Amino acid sequence: MVRYTVTFLPDNKKIEVEINTTLLQAAEKAGIIINSLCGGDGLCGECQLQVVNGKAMADKNTIGLFSKNEIENGYVLACRTKVEDNLTVMIPPKSRIEMEKIITDGAAITYSEPEKLVLHKTSHEPSFSFDPLVKKIYLELPEPTLEDNASDIDRITRELSKISSYEHFEVSLSCLQNLTEKLRTHHWKITVTFARHNSIGRILQIEGGDTSDKHYGLAVDVGTTTVVAQLVNLKTGKIIGVKGSHNLQARYGADVISRMVFACVRGSLEPVHKAVITNINNLAHALAQEHHIDTKDITVVFAAGNTTMSHFLLNLTPCSIRLEPYVPTTTVYPQISAAEIGIDINPKGILEVAPSIASYVGGDIVAGVLACGMADKPEIRCLIDVGTNGEIVIGNNEWLVCCSASAGPAFEGGGAKSGMRATKGAIEKLEIHDGEVTYETIGKAKPRGICGSGLIDAIYEMVRNNIIEQHGKFNMSPGNPRLITEDEELKYVLAYPDETETGQAISISESEIANLIKSKGAVFAAIKSLVDYVGLSFDQLENVYVAGGFGSSLNIPKAIAIGLIPDIDVKRIQFIGNSSLTGARMSLTSIAAFEKSLKIARRMTNIELSNYVPFMHEFVAALFLPHTDAKLFPSVNYNR
Amino acid sequence: MVRYTVTFLPDNKKIEVEINTTLLQAAEKAGIIINSLCGGDGLCGECQLQVVNGKAMADKNTIGLFSKNEIENGYVLACRTKVEDNLTVMIPPKSRIEMEKIITDGAAITYSEPEKLVLHKTSHEPSFSFDPLVKKIYLELPEPTLEDNASDIDRITRELSKISSYEHFEVSLSCLQNLTEKLRTHHWKITVTFARHNSIGRILQIEGGDTSDKHYGLAVDVGTTTVVAQLVNLKTGKIIGVKGSHNLQARYGADVISRMVFACVRGSLEPVHKAVITNINNLAHALAQEHHIDTKDITVVFAAGNTTMSHFLLNLTPCSIRLEPYVPTTTVYPQISAAEIGIDINPKGILEVAPSIASYVGGDIVAGVLACGMADKPEIRCLIDVGTNGEIVIGNNEWLVCCSASAGPAFEGGGAKSGMRATKGAIEKLEIHDGEVTYETIGKAKPRGICGSGLIDAIYEMVRNNIIEQHGKFNMSPGNPRLITEDEELKYVLAYPDETETGQAISISESEIANLIKSKGAVFAAIKSLVDYVGLSFDQLENVYVAGGFGSSLNIPKAIAIGLIPDIDVKRIQFIGNSSLTGARMSLTSIAAFEKSLKIARRMTNIELSNYVPFMHEFVAALFLPHTDAKLFPSVNYNR
Repeated sequence: MVRYTVTFLPDNKKIEVEINTTLLQAAEKAGIIINSLCGGDGLCGECQLQVVNGKAMADKNTIGLFSKNEIENGYVLACRTKVEDNLTVMIPPKSRIEMEKIITDGAAITYSEPEKLVLHKTSHEPSFSFDPLVKKIYLELPEPTLEDNASDIDRITRELSKISSYEHFEVSLSCLQNLTEKLRTHHWKITVTFARHNSIGRILQIEGGDTSDKHYGLAVDVGTTTVVAQLVNLKTGKIIGVKGSHNLQARYGADVISRMVFACVRGSLEPVHKAVITNINNLAHALAQEHHIDTKDITVVFAAGNTTMSHFLLNLTPCSIRLEPYVPTTTVYPQISAAEIGIDINPKGILEVAPSIASYVGGDIVAGVLACGMADKPEIRCLIDVGTNGEIVIGNNEWLVCCSASAGPAFEGGGAKSGMRATKGAIEKLEIHDGEVTYETIGKAKPRGICGSGLIDAIYEMVRNNIIEQHGKFNMSPGNPRLITEDEELKYVLAYPDETETGQAISISESEIANLIKSKGAVFAAIKSLVDYVGLSFDQLENVYVAGGFGSSLNIPKAIAIGLIPDIDVKRIQFIGNSSLTGARMSLTSIAAFEKSLKIARRMTNIELSNYVPFMHEFVAALFLPHTDAKLFPSVNYNR
Repeated sequence: MVRYTVTFLPDNKKIEVEINTTLLQAAEKAGIIINSLCGGDGLCGECQLQVVNGKAMADKNTIGLFSKNEIENGYVLACRTKVEDNLTVMIPPKSRIEMEKIITDGAAITYSEPEKLVLHKTSHEPSFSFDPLVKKIYLELPEPTLEDNASDIDRITRELSKISSYEHFEVSLSCLQNLTEKLRTHHWKITVTFARHNSIGRILQIEGGDTSDKHYGLAVDVGTTTVVAQLVNLKTGKIIGVKGSHNLQARYGADVISRMVFACVRGSLEPVHKAVITNINNLAHALAQEHHIDTKDITVVFAAGNTTMSHFLLNLTPCSIRLEPYVPTTTVYPQISAAEIGIDINPKGILEVAPSIASYVGGDIVAGVLACGMADKPEIRCLIDVGTNGEIVIGNNEWLVCCSASAGPAFEGGGAKSGMRATKGAIEKLEIHDGEVTYETIGKAKPRGICGSGLIDAIYEMVRNNIIEQHGKFNMSPGNPRLITEDEELKYVLAYPDETETGQAISISESEIANLIKSKGAVFAAIKSLVDYVGLSFDQLENVYVAGGFGSSLNIPKAIAIGLIPDIDVKRIQFIGNSSLTGARMSLTSIAAFEKSLKIARRMTNIELSNYVPFMHEFVAALFLPHTDAKLFPSVNYNR
């Protein structure tokens, strides 16, 4: 078999591969992770590489994904280009999965001001007492006598019963083995780690001496686009740190549907499962390293994610989720040993996953409802979680209904060429006055792209400044120097090349604006459909909570003005950030909160919009800025 | 290193070993299991071998264990003889552990009429409804629709809830993985195997199609001397077969104390643990083979044993059991995966172990109390279990007290040279009339030895015929041709060499009679102490149940007449055989029975006789036939 060497720049990594291996496979073999949202079908155009030396044959079908300039400079798609020569290729930063940085140089991508994530509080945030899912308690036991010769484990559980809420305990065989020596070697001074398991105490670990100071847990939001983890001190309840990363599953597809297709049809489940485990392990290690703790002192991971993500996390076949009648394997996930699926914390540690409602309303929403406290009071409230899917919940302490609609990744920085996740260098706020664009970036860095909150501002500012029409098309009246044609498409330049980190302009095209309008239309149509379904009007909602990965803040009036969220008094609307992560942390640190989330999951009724005729009408009506029915947005006036 | 070859006859197995290896080690290396009750200390004399070729140096200290004839014929102790030449050695049948037969030729040792074991019923045997610990149920599920798109596992547990007593179910991750395909491939027709676990249903296995016919469980009595297993059809409740074997731990010591010393001081726990696992696996395989089932269709093992045996079974350190204040690691054993400790049944199968009371009152007694039904009614009853330890329980449905005393293995066929377990060829009944001995053997075979019930008969007949005095010494008046001197000790011949299978006489020596009197004395003293402790008299006991491995039957009047059991109306005394096995089978086949056994264990009060002064007085008073206080045995009259 003929073999060639491929050299990947800028890392100068060399790899020898057989003829006809694709560049994507060669990169993977070299340990370089390249974006591939479509899973290697030549459709998403994410895996662009520049061939700088050697001859390569580009796939004619993919030519539409490149500008003329790019084609001349040797840009190809890694997934569609086979190695038939010794090649040197350059990987542009945008093609590289950012997580790679963690793998290669140990530095994780952090949110600019990560603690902000946890500062989002709703006015009704429930207060649960600090009572973590896993506890670590130091015991000094009385020595046995002939009058008191209870068994070793009874001596332990007798003491534990006095100081914990559990009447009964269960213990694994491995904890019992060698317990006798451990107790006597350590003079009856031990530390017991135990978890809530079906309302009884499950003893996970018995250590000699006092190790109760070393006691940490990880709350994880497993999002389709991003995976974010919070490290919590379970002795004090204090949040120690937070880190986020791209979901490494991105290479198997941009959204849950394409990943399910990969797992069930084109590829297999295992690599998709492994990808998210790698995410969690990398985050755990990075957080542990940064805060000088041992990952072995993390004894519990609490994860919240949508139903598909939870299935991938647990290596459960998601294959019936995507097909009518949309049936998941399970909605309540068993408490398992973290080691069982390769999560690298304490080998006796556990993984608990937030319960789901249905195939398209997952544990992230249950965690969100928990976080905003809407299920605690009689007033009717609404939660809008805008992720790759938009999920809506309406209800109170007596009833809860929910639905979901595919929103696409636009508001999480996906899809748009200049779009990016809310990390350092993302434009998060933007204004346009007299043709001049001013913006703020996360971390005050030079801009690298634009995140969800920035895009909402941009759309609003463009329509207010008459740069686009209310149906989303550019106003073609001349004299706007920022309106350029590139690659045969009209684009509005938000930042010129000399302003940016990458030296490339940050711009937004007409098709990208259309995508954003579709996304906001789907979310609003879902809200409207659900409000109508329960026979309410927007005014009857005591509060509307908006959650999602837009960025560290969201301009509520502008979000209303583009028609994303209902036009009610802004004082009643609150942006609560990553409520899935907040809810996961609440469950991690409070048994009552976790039990509440199980109740929320049991109580919530899911409305399948795919089955619900009015939704399509609402969607079409919402494809306008702010809406075709102006009466729905009485306060919106673009003053044009 | 110099190496020699050892050839073991009659198998002609050859093994090359280094110089100074002991013959016991060499045999083990060759896969031959040799009796070694003392664990290789040169004390028990069980590991005798005959060196037929080559030179070997016998240990002078062990010379007392051999007759002159044996010394001349090259008999040595395997544990005390080192290999310093190429040797050919003959293993006499008595030195070989019988289980070896199962290992080498696949034929297990069976009880002569094994079903008899299960025919022992008490007059008050409780009736529990058939409701096995592990159930296997075939389900034809309704296919999901958009109106009913519950998760796959909810669809299963919904149906299970309708037809089982469980409200809640838990399921392992491995059962969920691939469930989606399994349900759809098998058109929603599946068989679910689930176990009781802390009052919820624990789903162990989900198979496609209807496999509910293949559903078996194993009840095991793990005795110090013997391990007995019953194979039960868990669909019908029918007992399919039963097999017994020597406990392979015998090579590490004859009793629980010497095995604990081996595990904790001289050797290590692992081999003692592995030995009993091998016992159970061999029995399971032999039973499965004989009854043409697959061991993979056995999904549950229920084991009952004394506390030390239960610890060894689960690989739990028993090291604090034997030392004051006698503390076990646990008295309630976790339900575990059978595979976790190497039990070779269905890989998803479980092991449940009967709960213990204290270090010296174990799950075998709890199972016995369950089996005889004494904890169900207000009348006060007594259970006497004579094994290597003698355990006594007195009580009713409101209270239960128990104690234990070391009885030694005499009644189980241990200790005495002609003693043997109640298997084929054992003398189980014996009479002496006018100097003539008549007997019955198990399986009507030529006699090979004498089991517990035969020994009780022999003692009784010897004292009645004035062959021994009431203090156990031979009556030296001349003219008894059966009274011979062999190896400088007086012996009474029960069967002459020409009558026996082995060609060696079956006899009983004065020291063996003394041992039996000590055993019966310890048991009776324990009964008397406990009756006194609770302030009762023997007459107030509604029933006395006698359990133990004496044989398939026990002559109650003769057992009274030697002073083993109290002298009350024989109609109120019942021999119930292996009640530990019966109780284990009850728990296996009825959840109510298992839950009852947990209650029995919680309710029973243990009296430590080692702490109880009157016991020693009672013991000394009982070292006489029937007793030094004749008033205690008013009905006994030897008519001499």
